[in-house]
Amino acid sequence: MFYIGVDLGGTNIAAGLVNSEGKIIAKGSVPTLRKREYPEIIKDMAALIFDLINSQGMNISDFHSIGVGSPGIPDCSEGKIVYASNINFRDVPLRKELQKYINLPVYVNNDANIAAFAESVAGAAKGYKTSVTVTIGTGIGSGIIIDGKIFSGFNNAATEFGHMVLQMNGEPCNCGRRGCWETYASATACINQTKAAAAQNPDSLINKLVGGDLDKIDAKTAFDAAKQGDEAAVNVVDQYIRYIGAGLANIINCFQPEVIVIGGGVCKEGEYLLAPLREFVKANTFAPAHNIKIAEIKAAEMGNDAGIVGAAMLRE
Amino acid sequence: MFYIGVDLGGTNIAAGLVNSEGKIIAKGSVPTLRKREYPEIIKDMAALIFDLINSQGMNISDFHSIGVGSPGIPDCSEGKIVYASNINFRDVPLRKELQKYINLPVYVNNDANIAAFAESVAGAAKGYKTSVTVTIGTGIGSGIIIDGKIFSGFNNAATEFGHMVLQMNGEPCNCGRRGCWETYASATACINQTKAAAAQNPDSLINKLVGGDLDKIDAKTAFDAAKQGDEAAVNVVDQYIRYIGAGLANIINCFQPEVIVIGGGVCKEGEYLLAPLREFVKANTFAPAHNIKIAEIKAAEMGNDAGIVGAAMLRE
Repeated sequence: MFYIGVDLGGTNIAAGLVNSEGKIIAKGSVPTLRKREYPEIIKDMAALIFDLINSQGMNISDFHSIGVGSPGIPDCSEGKIVYASNINFRDVPLRKELQKYINLPVYVNNDANIAAFAESVAGAAKGYKTSVTVTIGTGIGSGIIIDGKIFSGFNNAATEFGHMVLQMNGEPCNCGRRGCWETYASATACINQTKAAAAQNPDSLINKLVGGDLDKIDAKTAFDAAKQGDEAAVNVVDQYIRYIGAGLANIINCFQPEVIVIGGGVCKEGEYLLAPLREFVKANTFAPAHNIKIAEIKAAEMGNDAGIVGAAMLRE
Repeated sequence: MFYIGVDLGGTNIAAGLVNSEGKIIAKGSVPTLRKREYPEIIKDMAALIFDLINSQGMNISDFHSIGVGSPGIPDCSEGKIVYASNINFRDVPLRKELQKYINLPVYVNNDANIAAFAESVAGAAKGYKTSVTVTIGTGIGSGIIIDGKIFSGFNNAATEFGHMVLQMNGEPCNCGRRGCWETYASATACINQTKAAAAQNPDSLINKLVGGDLDKIDAKTAFDAAKQGDEAAVNVVDQYIRYIGAGLANIINCFQPEVIVIGGGVCKEGEYLLAPLREFVKANTFAPAHNIKIAEIKAAEMGNDAGIVGAAMLRE
């Protein structure tokens, strides 16, 4: 039996055919053109799925179900997207609309939850009973998996660890609060922290790496300069790791997952990020002092395929 | 069938016989005398249980199991207390020791988790699928119930929402970190905030209520003065409610429980506390802006019996 996974993003609709081991056997994408009405977007989603199936000489009857990951807040039982700002979806009956074209069960969930699910089924959290996956990008997405199932709270709006306040009255956040974790620990925050350090330290390697054009700073720039020993960059990276770590320590104290998986571009830094992060977290959670094990901290393994594979693996 | 619940505290061992509706039919207590070795303490626990059973003319065979709630971190599967500082327990085989006296299944869990379980089985969270109970006392204890079961993470050390940092580099906490929620929102914190306001406002009603002796200030003093309109006290209470609310908003954004139950002395303030708390939480979580329901916030109902009833209801 095979499974269809769809990763509905603000830029592209990506879809893939996935086998029961979580391996993609075919994938493709089309532009979302997100300003359109939802029936147009979902029509293109269905056409993309048919193209993939036909390209493999397969039939709808070879497939068990379709899973769709979407930004925003889903209604999983109704198969709807209640709200997703960046594709302008409000109360969109995704299941019902997609089933106009394809007669298969359709499961819907949030994209960060699906990334966590993918890591749990086939990635860095495979074999762990409880996991949290934190995806560090423009914001911070997160998902909790308990006993192989996505935990998304009673209203499907969990988990948003990125919108856990770590600093009351701190940096303003898009969500309307101040001091949310993502205002300190997202890739966007890292870029802002790097820019501020570059402006304050015009002779730093950070500035040289971008030819003096601070707008070229990305979330990797401080790490690149720090690895070459640049002091301003080392300070940025050390502080940024403490910001990430403070959130992870909260997750551990509150939830004690068996593993935390870090996704997003920053996870490519590997042990350069993870080793000091583990040290910080160990020193900032209470269990290790009592010889009690805490969560392992690992880099994500599913990369860009997480959205397709995780969605394909969704079940009732 | 009946159940035995034991609430092992730093001062007293309380025990009760509980029926299948969660009603206590007999209860009693003996001093813990916590400086003793654990076999002595557990021997007294067994004697207390036998006294209760005999007082009702019942037999061990009338009982299904014994549940014991303890401070600290349990090993639920082994029936041990791994660590509990205030009764000086380290790796105590509670189940094994108690079964030397009584041949019944023995279940062990953390007291804050058990308080949450009691509210879920028979109190304010009854009928809700996911609940968080926050007990505001000297510190802040907390427990999560998901689908009728205590969620305590892979190492049984969850949940410690009280040790979620809300203010990086903030007030020092007993746990070794800084800025934990309980340093702002526990009863102890409320007392400290009230004392500071009284010292700064010598003419306030706070001072009058304690006859000028600031050491007599308790967690209720600011509420009492605020209800009579005292400005300094109103400011203390408003800020204290924002501190409680900031933590609740984090819990909601991260977990989206269906209900949050507030326990501890402060819950006796009722709507005077709960109404502004709900308002703050609604304004400081992202779901309501998208017409998505969030957790109800309710006062605990189980009171001092929570420990006995919750423990009695423990199962494998």
